[in-house]
Amino acid sequence: MNSCYKIQPSEVARSAQLAMILEVSASPKPGNIDRTHDYVDTCYEHFLASATGVYPVIERAASGKEKIGQLLKEAVLESNKWQKGGNTHFGAFLLLLPLAKAAGQLSQENETFDMKKMVERAHWIVKHTDVEDSINFYQAFGKANVCVQDVEDLDLNDSDSITILRKNQTSLFELMEISENYDMIAKEWTHGFELCCRCSEQITDLMEEKGTCTDINCSIVYTFLKLLSKNPDTFIQTKFNRETAVEVSEKATAIVTQIEACGYEATLPSIIELDEELLKKKINPGSTADIIIGGLFLSIMGGMRF
Amino acid sequence: MNSCYKIQPSEVARSAQLAMILEVSASPKPGNIDRTHDYVDTCYEHFLASATGVYPVIERAASGKEKIGQLLKEAVLESNKWQKGGNTHFGAFLLLLPLAKAAGQLSQENETFDMKKMVERAHWIVKHTDVEDSINFYQAFGKANVCVQDVEDLDLNDSDSITILRKNQTSLFELMEISENYDMIAKEWTHGFELCCRCSEQITDLMEEKGTCTDINCSIVYTFLKLLSKNPDTFIQTKFNRETAVEVSEKATAIVTQIEACGYEATLPSIIELDEELLKKKINPGSTADIIIGGLFLSIMGGMRF
Repeated sequence: MNSCYKIQPSEVARSAQLAMILEVSASPKPGNIDRTHDYVDTCYEHFLASATGVYPVIERAASGKEKIGQLLKEAVLESNKWQKGGNTHFGAFLLLLPLAKAAGQLSQENETFDMKKMVERAHWIVKHTDVEDSINFYQAFGKANVCVQDVEDLDLNDSDSITILRKNQTSLFELMEISENYDMIAKEWTHGFELCCRCSEQITDLMEEKGTCTDINCSIVYTFLKLLSKNPDTFIQTKFNRETAVEVSEKATAIVTQIEACGYEATLPSIIELDEELLKKKINPGSTADIIIGGLFLSIMGGMRF
Repeated sequence: MNSCYKIQPSEVARSAQLAMILEVSASPKPGNIDRTHDYVDTCYEHFLASATGVYPVIERAASGKEKIGQLLKEAVLESNKWQKGGNTHFGAFLLLLPLAKAAGQLSQENETFDMKKMVERAHWIVKHTDVEDSINFYQAFGKANVCVQDVEDLDLNDSDSITILRKNQTSLFELMEISENYDMIAKEWTHGFELCCRCSEQITDLMEEKGTCTDINCSIVYTFLKLLSKNPDTFIQTKFNRETAVEVSEKATAIVTQIEACGYEATLPSIIELDEELLKKKINPGSTADIIIGGLFLSIMGGMRF
């Protein structure tokens, strides 16, 4: 898209769909479901159907004044309506919905696409969430069957939490502030989508320079590994523990070093080996995948094509 | 979807997207691009991006009064805008657009989903195309870079053809009547989407019975092979010759017999062997894939979920 191009809600929704579809397709993507690896109850096609089904909710995020919590709840419902594999994109929706809403607002103000402006606006949007967003988040969460860390005061699995939320008027942003230290997605909210931006820049650079990577699949896998190497995945941390997450990041670091020294193709056997090891142990860097989706969305919105 | 459910244009568009995405993902799908096989200039991700990008055109087909030729031209433009891999879905658009338009019309008349009614209406729609549709078809074709058979009087690669079309007032349906003997997609227009319906019935049956197939991927691959076994692919016929197309169908027949006798899993090595042979020889049953997309679309519209 060139600089005088005005963003349409339909382009926002399709960019979000394609970001989710490209991310889950990227392979070999150590530990996660991809085009050649399913889990027992959730398979590749469940992610494809979820990404397809959520279109109208993203379009509404980009066109209307609806609130994040309500949109999140509807995104989960729509995802569930199109597939029977359980939770696929809860974390991704938490990133995509404010970014899509930001894109829509900027468009209505006749602004053209600019990544910095978009994430600044998205940051403003999440900061202005309220207790209704928190309640809808809890309800969406109940429908999505997500794996999360127990928090003493506000257990996501406890219906009494809603009463407490209402009493304390806790906004969804405040909830994210509580979680930011053990949840990368929450930290994206509180830190202005920092990692999403970094991923987007790397993916776009890789596609433009065509040095290390010759195609979109390689660009995503490489960016995924780089992100994982520098940021222990909080989904792994929640499901296992901090040590396991750090260990996986160290292994990713070794692979990134190998890619930098020998190139992507030559490193493929090591990537496949790590993939098989993590799959076997059911260690899936799910939060890293969500951030990659956010990054891909920003790149596609910025006009990246292949 | 239950019987009192009214179809929305957005559901039609998402069903079409998912049909295209599931078809290209199905693997091993002998000879065609799938999640593990690319061609030199066109890769798996180009199909994913094309299927994502075409959403608004299908939505308009399902909601408006726009004509098939115009919609086809815009579908090709939109597909090209979202990916750089050349023609991906020309044949699929020719099937999906009248089916989507039929779904929209029935919905406006407060009819609920019924496959028979939908294809009857789609058949009526294609019969009522006119010379403007033909001209737009030629122009769309020019932009899509499709491989077709030369026809003496109306060469799709010849711009004079448009002058002849206009002079003779040849409708797009009449053009399809000229091609029906060597083009499966044209024959779907003239024979009321017969093969699409048969594929849809088979896919839905396989998913419901879960006998031969345990998942959506197997259901698509098996249906693809069955269709190919009974109908020599006209895309192969155009690119090579009738003999090659018949030979491929005979090989598919042998595999279907093996699946029926020994089951899908046990037959996988034979399917992979045929896949490798066809890929090596660049024999791709592209028309068969288009019809599978039409069948998947009907199944998804009918409420098939997995």
